[in-house]
Amino acid sequence: MRRLAAALDVQPSALYWHFPNKQTLLAELADRIVAARPAGWAGTDGLDDWRDAVRAEAAALRDALLAYRDGAEVVSSTLALGLGSPETVDRLARAVARGGFDAETSRRSATALLHFVLGHVSHEQQRLQYDSLGVLAGGESSPLDEDDPAAAFAFGVDLLVGGLELSRSRR
Amino acid sequence: MRRLAAALDVQPSALYWHFPNKQTLLAELADRIVAARPAGWAGTDGLDDWRDAVRAEAAALRDALLAYRDGAEVVSSTLALGLGSPETVDRLARAVARGGFDAETSRRSATALLHFVLGHVSHEQQRLQYDSLGVLAGGESSPLDEDDPAAAFAFGVDLLVGGLELSRSRR
Repeated sequence: MRRLAAALDVQPSALYWHFPNKQTLLAELADRIVAARPAGWAGTDGLDDWRDAVRAEAAALRDALLAYRDGAEVVSSTLALGLGSPETVDRLARAVARGGFDAETSRRSATALLHFVLGHVSHEQQRLQYDSLGVLAGGESSPLDEDDPAAAFAFGVDLLVGGLELSRSRR
Repeated sequence: MRRLAAALDVQPSALYWHFPNKQTLLAELADRIVAARPAGWAGTDGLDDWRDAVRAEAAALRDALLAYRDGAEVVSSTLALGLGSPETVDRLARAVARGGFDAETSRRSATALLHFVLGHVSHEQQRLQYDSLGVLAGGESSPLDEDDPAAAFAFGVDLLVGGLELSRSRR
């Protein structure tokens, strides 16, 4: 908080006038990170297929997290602290619900999707950060590396969506 | 490293005789964490159904991570550094391959499973740690909380397994 205040050229007490503590400030940051959407984003209500809506919400969330250094870490800590907007889960749950799933199944699926998204992007961002710090100077590859991280991410989301589809066909 | 040496009552240089740096020591720790299996664990080769094998490997990995504080964080940092054994991914990939999937699909699915497992357990462990530190004194709930974390975890694994099953039925 002291370094942030110095960078803003204000007294630390000025920050505490807006936020009771660092966690609350990070939670506000997390809410803004996940809410960001590209210019011209029209939402997913216009998509005919619920599966496309889930894929689009998940991809938009990944992009939003990737846009900020440590985005996945800030968001996951905030969620673990019980802070931050429930909107992150709710968006995914609404997209799933369009497939005709009940509220509980939609919520649990959204939670599973979010764990996958945070796990995936957190790995991508850790790799980027280690690389920029020169820790990977030896060019160590990770067993989790992918030539095309966006395609690998979409593959995982497709498995989760496919699992939902299969469960529906069996009802 | 200095604190660890003090706890072991040896000079820090003694640790460096075994490990060139802290990352290598943590990687060895990560390998031991993920390799742990409960007493009497007979592996998954004896299971008739590949889906049960995937479920059992994923659940065993979650249990192994939960057995150590910050287990998920130690393992994911190690993987991001390109250190640690590829065995963590390979076990899951072998279980998937038993369903008749090609090597590339098995590897990509194992990677997706691992991101889900690390995302899920990392959330569980962050919650536990914040709770033990008294940070959640107000009893803040997280939108990702589940009454039964093991069941929520199994639900997510089942979606991923179901997605694989659906993709197979469409080939």
